[in-house]
Amino acid sequence: MPPGDTLPVGPGDDAAVIPAPDGRVVATTDLLIEGRHFRRDWSGPADVGVKAAAQNLADVAAMGAMPRAVLVGLACPGETPASWVLEMIRGMVAECGRAGASIAGGDVTAADTIMLGITALGDLAGRPPVRRSGAQPGDVVAVAGRIGWSAAGLASLQAGLGASEQLAGVVSAHRRPQPPYPAGPAAAVAGATAMIDVSDGLLADLGHIAAASGVCIDVQLALLPVDEQVTAAAGVLGAQWPEWALAGGEDHALAATFPAVAAVPSPWRAIGTVRSGRGVLVDGHAWNGRRGWDHFR
Amino acid sequence: MPPGDTLPVGPGDDAAVIPAPDGRVVATTDLLIEGRHFRRDWSGPADVGVKAAAQNLADVAAMGAMPRAVLVGLACPGETPASWVLEMIRGMVAECGRAGASIAGGDVTAADTIMLGITALGDLAGRPPVRRSGAQPGDVVAVAGRIGWSAAGLASLQAGLGASEQLAGVVSAHRRPQPPYPAGPAAAVAGATAMIDVSDGLLADLGHIAAASGVCIDVQLALLPVDEQVTAAAGVLGAQWPEWALAGGEDHALAATFPAVAAVPSPWRAIGTVRSGRGVLVDGHAWNGRRGWDHFR
Repeated sequence: MPPGDTLPVGPGDDAAVIPAPDGRVVATTDLLIEGRHFRRDWSGPADVGVKAAAQNLADVAAMGAMPRAVLVGLACPGETPASWVLEMIRGMVAECGRAGASIAGGDVTAADTIMLGITALGDLAGRPPVRRSGAQPGDVVAVAGRIGWSAAGLASLQAGLGASEQLAGVVSAHRRPQPPYPAGPAAAVAGATAMIDVSDGLLADLGHIAAASGVCIDVQLALLPVDEQVTAAAGVLGAQWPEWALAGGEDHALAATFPAVAAVPSPWRAIGTVRSGRGVLVDGHAWNGRRGWDHFR
Repeated sequence: MPPGDTLPVGPGDDAAVIPAPDGRVVATTDLLIEGRHFRRDWSGPADVGVKAAAQNLADVAAMGAMPRAVLVGLACPGETPASWVLEMIRGMVAECGRAGASIAGGDVTAADTIMLGITALGDLAGRPPVRRSGAQPGDVVAVAGRIGWSAAGLASLQAGLGASEQLAGVVSAHRRPQPPYPAGPAAAVAGATAMIDVSDGLLADLGHIAAASGVCIDVQLALLPVDEQVTAAAGVLGAQWPEWALAGGEDHALAATFPAVAAVPSPWRAIGTVRSGRGVLVDGHAWNGRRGWDHFR
């Protein structure tokens, strides 16, 4: 969808005007900083645009809403090639289009490093938002989308194997996460009791649901979706794929809890259960690997 | 107004849920970067929070909307004192309260410099948005709010006179712009044909209205609001106050066009006229001073 073509007021005025037919708007914002959230030697400009949009659009979907609009703040050095900026925006427009959103407006300024401030807005279509705090003992835990792919791709890039043909799938997944946007509203329609976007790692993000809901979440390793590209990458790199699946962030899968297995809609897959208690377990035990990403480590 | 206390979902979930009773939402975003948009030796943390909020809230008001919510992305070095961050947020909350908005959500990440990504959302209350493109020959040009104060304060700081008692008013105006938020909706109710937030400088921003509307705007120097604190600062610094009033940015006054003098509501003041042609004139002539702020100079 081209920038702002469906909006009452798109880019170019003091502010945009965006439809909010539901009478409420879902809104989230994130910053991405070169060297911390992306590297220009590992990701092309379109990759950066895709990733910046995806991580915000996924937060909207994780409330059970349909993404509708994105605002973009871009800071970059004066000598940044215009072609880099245009390609970045092209990637962002493409990902917004995949999610059903328009680019509504933005801001450009000079800085020493490239920084992006992205805001995504979405529509609940009359449904209550699905929060982190609604999980109940007895609920089923499920995921939609890829887990472990981005961590496998990052490990490949860190090993200097970014150009390997065998690892191309996971490297691409790291560069361009592919959140399953429609799975968010589908979960809401199916009665999901809690939902979150997996940005920090599956265990870390399920931990946010467990803490907000006051419950214990038990993940069954045997139920995790195992993708051949991820296990193959683990073989090449001498790594353990469960570490990537449980602790790797940035795939922007969705994780949710449902009142019963029968309620779990396609493409969601049950991976565990909610019970009374606290924290997150794997097969009934504490996981002793890394849990996920800490923003200030 | 405390953060998010009036929102269906405030900070702490994947996204906020914000009322949009009008069925549309006005949205704008801006980045502020330490060393470019603020200096920690010239502005305290609360000043930075006020300014960051004000410049976005003013963009919402400039569409004729009431500001309702703000999202904050904050990037800062790990060693930034928590007290700095808390004071900054306190300033932001205070300015949001002055405008009638809540802080709805945010994101915190690490970076080498302090950077803020602010998004403000607002409500049109059933009115059409006031855009830059509606000015017509015969309209009256008017301003609401301070002009020249921030530029006078910046000049005082640049001259090393930030602690001067005589210059305290303009220095404070530079640190904490005070946009006249209610004047935006008041202008819309009164039938304003075009409106803009004066962020780059009066002539530069009237130039945006002139260009978008395909008209010429003629400002009468004798009609500009002259404040004693600004003229006094000009005396102390050996400067010309009209240069500050016409080319100084960052006061976040509002400038608008109205169909007739009789339509100009309080606290707006007529300062010129719209006629056919192009560009912006001062007393019928091209202005040969600096026009305003260029983001990449």
